[in-house]
Amino acid sequence: MDVFEAINKRRSVRSYKADPIPEPVLSKVLDVMRQAPSAANRQPWKFLILKDQAIRESLVTQCGGQKFLKQAPVIVVACGLKDQAWKGVGGHPEASAIDIDLSIAIDHLTLAAVAEGLGTCWICAFKETCLKNLLKIPDTVKIVALTPLGYPASKDLIHPLNEDARKTSSELFCEDSYS
Amino acid sequence: MDVFEAINKRRSVRSYKADPIPEPVLSKVLDVMRQAPSAANRQPWKFLILKDQAIRESLVTQCGGQKFLKQAPVIVVACGLKDQAWKGVGGHPEASAIDIDLSIAIDHLTLAAVAEGLGTCWICAFKETCLKNLLKIPDTVKIVALTPLGYPASKDLIHPLNEDARKTSSELFCEDSYS
Repeated sequence: MDVFEAINKRRSVRSYKADPIPEPVLSKVLDVMRQAPSAANRQPWKFLILKDQAIRESLVTQCGGQKFLKQAPVIVVACGLKDQAWKGVGGHPEASAIDIDLSIAIDHLTLAAVAEGLGTCWICAFKETCLKNLLKIPDTVKIVALTPLGYPASKDLIHPLNEDARKTSSELFCEDSYS
Repeated sequence: MDVFEAINKRRSVRSYKADPIPEPVLSKVLDVMRQAPSAANRQPWKFLILKDQAIRESLVTQCGGQKFLKQAPVIVVACGLKDQAWKGVGGHPEASAIDIDLSIAIDHLTLAAVAEGLGTCWICAFKETCLKNLLKIPDTVKIVALTPLGYPASKDLIHPLNEDARKTSSELFCEDSYS
């Protein structure tokens, strides 16, 4: 699928079929995260691929969050490795690039998923402490985001971009001086 | 261009032709940032498009940084609007999604650029304070990243992904339990 089409058709999918993702398709869409750039090429990441149904259900029941998360056959947990991430964003010595790096990887995944007919949904509203306890993720890790990954329950979920809910170009772009 | 191809061919381009970008091409690649998702659809962003040569040169001479930045006909400055960004990432009340949101938008841009034969380079090593003074960007803004945007000086710059410099899949992915 054309990259502009993938960008335009990516929606936040909040209802999934339980259908499994064939292994070659899953490998293909996950591999785009491995190819993502990161500050100083540190690749400060690990991706926890949750397939086990009991674990996915525990995630929702114990840590709260959106029920559709457990509908999808896979949940991807984007784990940032705090001690590997480059620091110095914006000239601020302690500012870590970890959120930027992990977001690039997950964004790649969301677009590759569209091309394979899969849905995703950026989840930033999760209880990190609870999740880390449940999944035995060490303190050296920052969970940056999660996404379910699976086939959308209905084609209608891939509706056109809602232009009314978007800022306009004139609000977004300014040339040569900030306004 | 196919989305997987765009992801695979995106390189950090550090040498540019001075050739201008035709306006329809520039508009097309910038628009993918407008289409990007953001936490709670806040769209906490503004993109400063630097075209003026004197400003681009000042950016490098006054604020330091890589000289190739001023070779490209355009520099995109990704400005996060701190008071508009959603907070609460990972259940931490003060954790802003601003880096995540802006990174999604810029990642979209870098992939769209590949499809149009344009190069980009994620720049996180910049002096935010200096840049904000130079460009008269208000304190309510966080500059998350910059990228030059222009035609690569040579096709050789779009070399294949250096697999030797990448972590392997077995280092990146773990299934159902963190390891």
